[in-house]
Amino acid sequence: MRYNQFAYINTALPQAIKELSTINFLPDNYEELTFSELLKEFVLKTFPENPVNSKLAELAVGDVDLLTFLDQKPEKMTGLAFKTMALNLLGYELLNDYKLDDVTSFWKKHALPEFTDLSTKDELIMAFYRLLNTRAKNGQLLIDGLAAKGYFKSFFGGNSHVFFNGKSLPVFDTSRIIREMVYVETDLDTDGDGKSDLIQVAVYRPSESELFKIPAIYTANPYFTGIVENAKTNHNVDEDLVDATTWTNPQYEAKAEVPAKKPSGEDFGATEEAFGQSSYTLNEYMLARGFASVTAAAIGTRHSDGLRITGAPEETIAAKAVIEWLHGDRIAYTDRERTHEVKASWCTGNVGMSGRSYLGTLQISLATTGVPGLKTVVSEAAISSWYDYYREHGLVVAPEACQGEDLDKLAEFCQSNLLDAGDYLKKKAAFEAEQKELNEKQDRATGQYSDFWEARNYRHHTDGIKCSFISVHGLNDWNVKPKNVYKLWQKIKHLPIRHHLFLHQGPHHDMNNLVSIDFTDILNMWYCQELLDLNNGFEKQISPVMIQDNLQADEWHLEDDWSNHLGSEVKYYAEDQHTLSKNGNFQETVEFVDQGGQKISDKDWELKLFKAEIPSVFLKTDEFAHPITLTGRPEIKVRVASSKNVGQLSVALVELGKRQHLTPLPKKFMRQNLGYRFGYDALQEFVNDNPTIGKLISVAHMNLQNYQDMKKPSKITAGEFYDLTFQLQPTYYQVPAGSQLALVIYSTDQKMTKRPISETTYQIDLSATELTLYEK
Amino acid sequence: MRYNQFAYINTALPQAIKELSTINFLPDNYEELTFSELLKEFVLKTFPENPVNSKLAELAVGDVDLLTFLDQKPEKMTGLAFKTMALNLLGYELLNDYKLDDVTSFWKKHALPEFTDLSTKDELIMAFYRLLNTRAKNGQLLIDGLAAKGYFKSFFGGNSHVFFNGKSLPVFDTSRIIREMVYVETDLDTDGDGKSDLIQVAVYRPSESELFKIPAIYTANPYFTGIVENAKTNHNVDEDLVDATTWTNPQYEAKAEVPAKKPSGEDFGATEEAFGQSSYTLNEYMLARGFASVTAAAIGTRHSDGLRITGAPEETIAAKAVIEWLHGDRIAYTDRERTHEVKASWCTGNVGMSGRSYLGTLQISLATTGVPGLKTVVSEAAISSWYDYYREHGLVVAPEACQGEDLDKLAEFCQSNLLDAGDYLKKKAAFEAEQKELNEKQDRATGQYSDFWEARNYRHHTDGIKCSFISVHGLNDWNVKPKNVYKLWQKIKHLPIRHHLFLHQGPHHDMNNLVSIDFTDILNMWYCQELLDLNNGFEKQISPVMIQDNLQADEWHLEDDWSNHLGSEVKYYAEDQHTLSKNGNFQETVEFVDQGGQKISDKDWELKLFKAEIPSVFLKTDEFAHPITLTGRPEIKVRVASSKNVGQLSVALVELGKRQHLTPLPKKFMRQNLGYRFGYDALQEFVNDNPTIGKLISVAHMNLQNYQDMKKPSKITAGEFYDLTFQLQPTYYQVPAGSQLALVIYSTDQKMTKRPISETTYQIDLSATELTLYEK
Repeated sequence: MRYNQFAYINTALPQAIKELSTINFLPDNYEELTFSELLKEFVLKTFPENPVNSKLAELAVGDVDLLTFLDQKPEKMTGLAFKTMALNLLGYELLNDYKLDDVTSFWKKHALPEFTDLSTKDELIMAFYRLLNTRAKNGQLLIDGLAAKGYFKSFFGGNSHVFFNGKSLPVFDTSRIIREMVYVETDLDTDGDGKSDLIQVAVYRPSESELFKIPAIYTANPYFTGIVENAKTNHNVDEDLVDATTWTNPQYEAKAEVPAKKPSGEDFGATEEAFGQSSYTLNEYMLARGFASVTAAAIGTRHSDGLRITGAPEETIAAKAVIEWLHGDRIAYTDRERTHEVKASWCTGNVGMSGRSYLGTLQISLATTGVPGLKTVVSEAAISSWYDYYREHGLVVAPEACQGEDLDKLAEFCQSNLLDAGDYLKKKAAFEAEQKELNEKQDRATGQYSDFWEARNYRHHTDGIKCSFISVHGLNDWNVKPKNVYKLWQKIKHLPIRHHLFLHQGPHHDMNNLVSIDFTDILNMWYCQELLDLNNGFEKQISPVMIQDNLQADEWHLEDDWSNHLGSEVKYYAEDQHTLSKNGNFQETVEFVDQGGQKISDKDWELKLFKAEIPSVFLKTDEFAHPITLTGRPEIKVRVASSKNVGQLSVALVELGKRQHLTPLPKKFMRQNLGYRFGYDALQEFVNDNPTIGKLISVAHMNLQNYQDMKKPSKITAGEFYDLTFQLQPTYYQVPAGSQLALVIYSTDQKMTKRPISETTYQIDLSATELTLYEK
Repeated sequence: MRYNQFAYINTALPQAIKELSTINFLPDNYEELTFSELLKEFVLKTFPENPVNSKLAELAVGDVDLLTFLDQKPEKMTGLAFKTMALNLLGYELLNDYKLDDVTSFWKKHALPEFTDLSTKDELIMAFYRLLNTRAKNGQLLIDGLAAKGYFKSFFGGNSHVFFNGKSLPVFDTSRIIREMVYVETDLDTDGDGKSDLIQVAVYRPSESELFKIPAIYTANPYFTGIVENAKTNHNVDEDLVDATTWTNPQYEAKAEVPAKKPSGEDFGATEEAFGQSSYTLNEYMLARGFASVTAAAIGTRHSDGLRITGAPEETIAAKAVIEWLHGDRIAYTDRERTHEVKASWCTGNVGMSGRSYLGTLQISLATTGVPGLKTVVSEAAISSWYDYYREHGLVVAPEACQGEDLDKLAEFCQSNLLDAGDYLKKKAAFEAEQKELNEKQDRATGQYSDFWEARNYRHHTDGIKCSFISVHGLNDWNVKPKNVYKLWQKIKHLPIRHHLFLHQGPHHDMNNLVSIDFTDILNMWYCQELLDLNNGFEKQISPVMIQDNLQADEWHLEDDWSNHLGSEVKYYAEDQHTLSKNGNFQETVEFVDQGGQKISDKDWELKLFKAEIPSVFLKTDEFAHPITLTGRPEIKVRVASSKNVGQLSVALVELGKRQHLTPLPKKFMRQNLGYRFGYDALQEFVNDNPTIGKLISVAHMNLQNYQDMKKPSKITAGEFYDLTFQLQPTYYQVPAGSQLALVIYSTDQKMTKRPISETTYQIDLSATELTLYEK
């Protein structure tokens, strides 16, 4: 598997010498040393635990060990000898990983950087500069590996960041991290007790931040302080559809406000110690590199006041209060009795964000506020409109593995201040009233858009975005579906801000430690540019859009955009009732009888969908003679009649063909070090899984009553035909030669839609069925 | 599930006051305080992160919060109010764990200690003493939970251990752990290079050990520095048996010796920093409590000299050298070039051991040497004779999940000094010669005992044991089978040393963090007694033998011994060819044709065994009307004839009856803290699994050629009958009413024995078949 490196910056010798000197790798007297003396010095430096000769004897440079080789005072070294030695330094194990006679092929297979024969000291210096910036077996740079062995101990307690190849180094003393809790006062009174809601904020910062100011990476994480285990009380989804014209357009209503006090001159310092760790290993990684890690769960969570109101503006306002405090614009206290005031006097006021899912969602919502201090967001697998999370085209449509969940249930799930009995006694009544309101206004009966949902659509406010923006999303994320990032990207890409998009092959998962991409290094580079104003050429180095291939996990496509326009429009029509082709002209009507949910697992249900064993119209293409790549949002037009005056239709685009696909989740490999004795993460990558007969490429669902308007229901008549146009979830999908595409038209989606109990017959007029793809 | 506590020592008020004062929990002025003032002080102490009033408001004492309650200046408190408050302090979550109206029943279900109404300050003091020593939701004592929140920070840098309820507290500064590598010189030259073998030793010790001497817990762990991934090259087991009389009684031959230098006056101090952690979380737990953690992988492993020689006396000698160094009797150096001498000057010379499997095995072997300094071992899942690991009654019999493994393969697996190319070049030839010798002498052809195996039987040397001894073993351990601990125990229990035995329901697994037993606390108490000479009454507190029940995982049986004598002898005979009864008198001969291995999974194979679907004689009892407990080693006599002049017979005792059994591995629950910001472990317990139709209770295997002598083969003749007497693996097994017992007589055991390719017919004369059980 290839260890691609996108964040390595080509560096000229003078700059390399400067950087190597800065980190004390190049000896001061290097100009007086011979080639072999310098080689010995360099290799000894890679053993910060004990730079002694016996370490050299454990390395080989061909068929002799390095110590023996050095005894001959060599003035040059072959590239092969260097690579043989380097494999050991990079953490590869003889016998387990490589043999002494296959170093060259091993090197190529892993896409490690080339090293030629070395015959001058300058070449030797450049070789070690490159080697220190080479990804080791655990996916991290060799310099990170040395840091984990204590290389930078003598830098601890220093008064500045240290950069190496455009990234910040872990020169901060992680045994002396300051961990503190503060309570930020918001202007909200969501629990209606007449007092402004205080929210608890955990700050983790290097002790060096007492010497000089540092930026913060902030994660707004509603799960941080615990959850209420309510999954078993989700809503029933096995019920018939109702006439959506009963819709009443529920309105969003703001909660009461109680203005917070203005910050005074007091800075008492925090008195409460935070325990645990940041909610995110990336934050810990950056913490060791001089970026404070700040986490707040905010309103309604344990040790904070207020209520959860999923996705509502109040949640944005509460999460934003933390940035205002970090930027010096808002008051915070030492405890919940508001005893003393405490300031973020250690912070430059520059704030970046991080986090996935709900944590990514709050990044979008905060970015749209343009709050001063927020310089960048790295928003992963984020919801850009809550309607796109719990609803779709007039239907209740669940996120993957969350059937029956809704705004109210997620609010309860995060309402962790109920877990402390003392708080429970005080918040219970307000919580129950809020649950009732959410349950009514989310309107699971009609599934329609409304003002209530409109208030939860952050895409309307992208013009407010002032910070730079990275989006990360899994192309197989059926929890937060890709439409969320796609529709956001179509707006972000036109804003006058720096913006990047990374699409990986995972589901609702992160990509921080993949083998195939040095994403942690990319983010290190990014945060240095955005929060420390380091001029490291990020924009030259990293493409606007990077997309992981679905056939070869270790290949990344570098694109300028993600849209339909990357491909050319191709249309397919029914050729008969089972076949789809570019020239199809089948004029008949077919039908199927929907039977609601089935008493089988979701996995088995999907398999039946692929086998045309659930009630559906199933049309497939011929096998593709040449591979094609689908991009953007496929479109499907369907003319349909329901046997009732209600109806829901689903359409799925599926690749058929028994072959290995990538594992749904990445496989875990070696441990990675976050710093010096500072916790671990794991290298991971998608690998080939057992063969399956098909794979879902994209899907969409629609209420027949929205045939005229996605935001308003219409009456429909049983037996009458209506034309529906589906925009499917966006994709970037390579269909290999030999596979077929299938278009499946069905009604109940067991995993996502409601599952009616009574049968409904759907007629599909295939003369008006049309599939539009954007093919590369 | 019950959180049993065996290590809580009943303590009188004066002693409780003394201990609470020592840890600064009881205020100096407590005699001047009112009941409610003292209550407030105590509760504030449980929030070391920030002892402020707002924390009190988060607790409830019935239907008011504690702060409100204290405002009324109460002079008493009901037991229920105390328990309601305590649940929160113990980490239980309202809604997720309990409701405010079911505190009493919750308390009982978890077997938490009783708290009555409190109306005096003395009662309040005793209540808090007991509460601090109560196991919290994560299985640890509340005082451990406070420690994890920084309670003992003001104790860091002190110059003594601090004890609480007979156990050592984490008053050591884990952010300042000293981690160092030293190289101990042995008297061995196993790789034959003419130089004594150096072995690398990792020492982790609190920085306070610079102020006063502390004992060490040493883990001899051959896997510590890495492994050679050789599982795919295991021996072929699909082969016919050979005539065992070709046996040549291979001899053990000692390796060359090169005496180490004697320690001189030099103590340079270690120069090499160790990274990573102890190999065992228990060691880290004790490290935070003032016990150094020492690990050595020893000869043949990465960064050490020499060769692995599985189980041979040389491995004992090499592992022992570490204790000799800790005790001041042996030399060690700063690096592999023997540059400077380094002493364990921080060590009292008192050494305990820890570790499971191979790590437990080396504890037995070291104990038998009586090496000065070794005070106690806690040997888990250990091999007491290597013949009982890779052989049985004249047969090659594999440990579970290790078909085809043997002494040579395990030696290669641990020969991690081949992973460094520089060392590989130097050791390769000696390693290959050693592999050849091991492969020949282990004699997989005949499977017979020999002098070569005799040298690997530690039970012959138990008279040398001078240290105290804890054995721990899983009753379902088919890797290191229970015979290993049972036969050792029969000798240990007669020695004039303190000895204890713990038997849990796991396979080859640890029991450190079970919900049902406070084993970590028990071991803390044990190590304090053995290594610090603390008089904590361990012997009065803890039974000689503690056995986890196989039906109720949260029940432990307290016994004085583990042997046949715990039960009464009951004999069963064949009643017909399918039935077994106490009065059976069936006189016929039956037969089955063994067909060797089957191309199915081990799990499926076992299921077929239970269903009488593999070639076997399958005899079962009636359903038991009342539950019985089987103890010790069941015996089975079988009269058998083979159709060849070779043969192998297996016998299994199985419980039949579809019911839930305990999960094979414990389920993981909450995180436990090893100290203050010092890593984690996980609470775990066996829970009820999906129902299955049977469960293996015990098993044995025998070569027909050993019908006369287990240590010597005899010729046998095809078609002639021979009487075999099997001692099965020992057990302690409750058969519930309604279940049946089955005796299965078969030949090939797919998971353990060789699997002949040619068919063999076995005749069983049922008139001479007899099953002896020891029933309680």
